[in-house]
Amino acid sequence: MSFSVTILGTSSAIQAHGRNQSAQIVKVFNEIFLIDCGEGTQAILKKYKVNFNKINHILISHLHGDHYLGLFGLLSTMSLLGRTKPLNLFGPKGLKEIISIQLKYGDMALNYEVIFSETQVKEKAIIFKNGFLEVSSFPLIHRVDCTGFLIKETNKPFKINTEDLPHSLSNVQYNRLKKGESFVLSNGFKVEAEKWTLPPKKARSYAYCSDTMYNEKIIPYIKEVDLLYHESTFIEAHADRTISTMHSTAREAATIAKKADVKKLMLGHFSTRYKDLDQFLVESTEIFPSTILAKEGNKISIEES
Amino acid sequence: MSFSVTILGTSSAIQAHGRNQSAQIVKVFNEIFLIDCGEGTQAILKKYKVNFNKINHILISHLHGDHYLGLFGLLSTMSLLGRTKPLNLFGPKGLKEIISIQLKYGDMALNYEVIFSETQVKEKAIIFKNGFLEVSSFPLIHRVDCTGFLIKETNKPFKINTEDLPHSLSNVQYNRLKKGESFVLSNGFKVEAEKWTLPPKKARSYAYCSDTMYNEKIIPYIKEVDLLYHESTFIEAHADRTISTMHSTAREAATIAKKADVKKLMLGHFSTRYKDLDQFLVESTEIFPSTILAKEGNKISIEES
Repeated sequence: MSFSVTILGTSSAIQAHGRNQSAQIVKVFNEIFLIDCGEGTQAILKKYKVNFNKINHILISHLHGDHYLGLFGLLSTMSLLGRTKPLNLFGPKGLKEIISIQLKYGDMALNYEVIFSETQVKEKAIIFKNGFLEVSSFPLIHRVDCTGFLIKETNKPFKINTEDLPHSLSNVQYNRLKKGESFVLSNGFKVEAEKWTLPPKKARSYAYCSDTMYNEKIIPYIKEVDLLYHESTFIEAHADRTISTMHSTAREAATIAKKADVKKLMLGHFSTRYKDLDQFLVESTEIFPSTILAKEGNKISIEES
Repeated sequence: MSFSVTILGTSSAIQAHGRNQSAQIVKVFNEIFLIDCGEGTQAILKKYKVNFNKINHILISHLHGDHYLGLFGLLSTMSLLGRTKPLNLFGPKGLKEIISIQLKYGDMALNYEVIFSETQVKEKAIIFKNGFLEVSSFPLIHRVDCTGFLIKETNKPFKINTEDLPHSLSNVQYNRLKKGESFVLSNGFKVEAEKWTLPPKKARSYAYCSDTMYNEKIIPYIKEVDLLYHESTFIEAHADRTISTMHSTAREAATIAKKADVKKLMLGHFSTRYKDLDQFLVESTEIFPSTILAKEGNKISIEES
């Protein structure tokens, strides 16, 4: 099953140096999540050939313009392009009101239903789940209500190991075994899951943390994820800027990654003051070697292990 | 004195074929107007090297997203870039509320004052004037309240013709003559404006009409302008589409241009269904030969005559 993250934007508030504002596509099998939606996201989706209509869920972390100003245009375009299937929208209090007022003054209605769920900012909450994944929001510390998101696999199938099984299985039986269930065949043969399966592969997970100041309270939420996206608006040389802006440095992001024992860290949300981003990587890898920089158009696959 | 129009976007609702959403820069000497501000306008301003900080006025025709969704991001960026001088914002009822609610939920304040003036949709109204120009709004007929804008020169100076004048003039006297005033020198010599000046050059004017259905009532407002921008979302083959959408065809725009006896017509706001725009020009020039197509990045200078 595919699990990938495609980066659409890596800049902080002001677009610069060819970097777009925050937006990412997370694809887990057939579920496509758009996380944050800075201005111009619809044009960037087009550039990277993401079919708007296949987006099932949009998750907005907070209501600073660089994280949501592309949303209304995208919703409108989806409608103009004939979308009829409902869209799940998750975001902070206020987002629904902003959309409603824009629809009102434009005397518009969308051709499809937007199912809006307000994110909780006090504690972790499951906001979506289906047969194979679960999405949670969790609080970040920023100048306004802001949440991170955790997308993780659930119900990973047991690996079938029936080469030596002296009976053939029906599809139904085969699927029961994949779930780790034991059962008895009509001839009385006991198919014990422990004997004919191997444990499931590890459930993969991705955590998105933007925007936030350094905050160790998020560690339990993101513990051991395969890929952590953590904002690093600044490098340590400008650490003083993190106080009023409530952002993080690359070193802080790396420290969180290390303490949370994640597999890989991806940095993003770079301030416009940095044209060259090498220093982010240098600073982060000193503490957490497995660091990459988010880059427009890059697709990071999270492989099964 | 320079008078130019720079095209930033020519597409209708959906961006396509490399065309951006509606936005134009009108520059008259040192006054810079941004008319409409579709999503992504700030990036396009940057592309065409327009200094955000020099924009004195923003005029929004109506509250369909393709005409204003870039506004909040641009206002925010102006603030982040350190703007302190006030900005005049003109637009329909509702625009102020949309901005206010976005500032509220972003817990933001701009570093400069936005002086908002609500445009009138019932009749023509002067919305701004200074020593050398005047800007009016006038009603268009669209699905929501919508106005066009007319920018025209005023108080054009008389042309000085003092080669044979037997006395020299002070700067103050010279400027009085430019205004067409007569006066008497200290030696009793009468400087009569009729004798020592030629009539001023014709005042130049630009009219912006987007979005609108065919409407002859606008003719008095745009009569004899040097340059008329009139939307032409469709060609005549799709004239049926103009009814529900309340847009115009190229032929209709040309008919308005002809009846208003304008000097030049510029077509824009092209539907995404047309990749090639040749047909717009063919259709329009049959009725009104002096037609051009708006094109991203084009700067049209309106010369004195």
